[in-house]
Amino acid sequence: MQIIDGKATAAQIKAEIKAEVEHIVASGARAPHLAAVLVGHDGGSETYVRNKVLACEACGFESTLLKFEDTITEEELLNVVDQLNNNPAIDGFIVQLPLPKHIDEQKVTEAILPEKDVDGFHPVNVGRMSIGLPAFISATPLGILTLLQRYNIPTKGKKVAILGRSNIVGKPMASLMMQKQYGDSTVTVLHSHSENLAEECRQADILIAAIGSPAFVTADMVKPGAVVIDVGTTRVPDATRANGFRLQGDVDFNAVSPLCSAITPVPGGVGPMTICMLMLNTLQAYKQFAKL
Amino acid sequence: MQIIDGKATAAQIKAEIKAEVEHIVASGARAPHLAAVLVGHDGGSETYVRNKVLACEACGFESTLLKFEDTITEEELLNVVDQLNNNPAIDGFIVQLPLPKHIDEQKVTEAILPEKDVDGFHPVNVGRMSIGLPAFISATPLGILTLLQRYNIPTKGKKVAILGRSNIVGKPMASLMMQKQYGDSTVTVLHSHSENLAEECRQADILIAAIGSPAFVTADMVKPGAVVIDVGTTRVPDATRANGFRLQGDVDFNAVSPLCSAITPVPGGVGPMTICMLMLNTLQAYKQFAKL
Repeated sequence: MQIIDGKATAAQIKAEIKAEVEHIVASGARAPHLAAVLVGHDGGSETYVRNKVLACEACGFESTLLKFEDTITEEELLNVVDQLNNNPAIDGFIVQLPLPKHIDEQKVTEAILPEKDVDGFHPVNVGRMSIGLPAFISATPLGILTLLQRYNIPTKGKKVAILGRSNIVGKPMASLMMQKQYGDSTVTVLHSHSENLAEECRQADILIAAIGSPAFVTADMVKPGAVVIDVGTTRVPDATRANGFRLQGDVDFNAVSPLCSAITPVPGGVGPMTICMLMLNTLQAYKQFAKL
Repeated sequence: MQIIDGKATAAQIKAEIKAEVEHIVASGARAPHLAAVLVGHDGGSETYVRNKVLACEACGFESTLLKFEDTITEEELLNVVDQLNNNPAIDGFIVQLPLPKHIDEQKVTEAILPEKDVDGFHPVNVGRMSIGLPAFISATPLGILTLLQRYNIPTKGKKVAILGRSNIVGKPMASLMMQKQYGDSTVTVLHSHSENLAEECRQADILIAAIGSPAFVTADMVKPGAVVIDVGTTRVPDATRANGFRLQGDVDFNAVSPLCSAITPVPGGVGPMTICMLMLNTLQAYKQFAKL
């Protein structure tokens, strides 16, 4: 059984990006530049955005953090998006979600220029990815695909079961894994209304769990020798930890891991890959803009 | 075993559209207006476009057919698209594919205003549909969904196997059937590289064949009691016909139909629904434009 080490893979990719950026800057060009827009004081969002800024530093990128109180109006936020769209010094930017209730998240997402939409949430990017055209692919599915590739896990013709049909993981993951140029797999998408869910999981060569239900995947749901990718990161109370909680994946790791040929742990599996993929998308946006 | 009669269903829906348009026009508003752009003299394309114009008449729509020689340049065609985008008298339009090789089909498709893209091929519509937002859904998948609904075929939690992963049928069909608001099914997408393809098909409650391979689906690939939807329409030589060919579906109808609880024939199944769905999309575009 092999542990798929997302933390080490992400560090490796960030080092590769840093080397490429150093090469670009040494040639006299400016560095890639990511901007992040943060509204309000949600603890999780503040942590995510801080980690994105730190990742920019690690990769040799410029970064700009724009912080606003949650009293900002939708119109004011749309103006911020418009300015970032039109700022030639910014290659890509993200608006950290969730936004306050009085702001229409979809409207803001669709206001971002697709060429700068490094989160890959704009319908143009979702649609282009789906039909196999070049597009920004959102961080979590791209991170999973990259882990499978870097660990040389065969996907062509294999049966991939995806637990969950969210817009940010399940659906794009299915879209990628079925396409010839990415997974070329036989893809099954399972969800809360699926009949025979356990049996479907048991048939999978690769099982990707993304439902946000702690330890949902038990040993009887996994085929011996399967590859298991755990996207879940639920905070569960843990009195033994200083912060009072620990991160629990969608997979019962202790019971399932002995059965697997390979498995991602939580934490340290898919999680560390996501910010790293955002950096990769920013570098791609930069290259497209600079026509490198 | 029930024959799913696409011809009768399409006629019924067109009659419903016609009644609604008569009601609209009686209230003093103008009728919906579809334009079709035809380039060159491809026999299939000329037939399709003629049938679309006839369907407009049957539904009480205005229609405009713009015909160009295949010497038209890409720039000239993009100008035509631009004029249709900006013409307030046109609610929706299609550019009949395929286009001559010197014209970039994707560029033309993306030049169409998404609000007038009644074929549903623009990435914005593909992306919006994928993430569950209102969008124009392309004609063939929408036609299949409508047949399943009108024949009261249960889809929630059921296993749907889709043979084929094309951009115009397999992929959007998978996207629709997995979503709670449409099929709410467990969806598996199969293709030429799938291992255990026959066994996967045999597990399906609903089997949708869209690979363009005549009589590919044989009796041993179908679970007794399954619903079979045949999207294939391959011309195979037939000396007994005046035109020298007949349309053959992806399913071996004579062998498979006795096993099914319901099945679409070819012709007369999915085929007649597609133009009918284009009419429905045009009516929707009209209503959105007129804010009805």
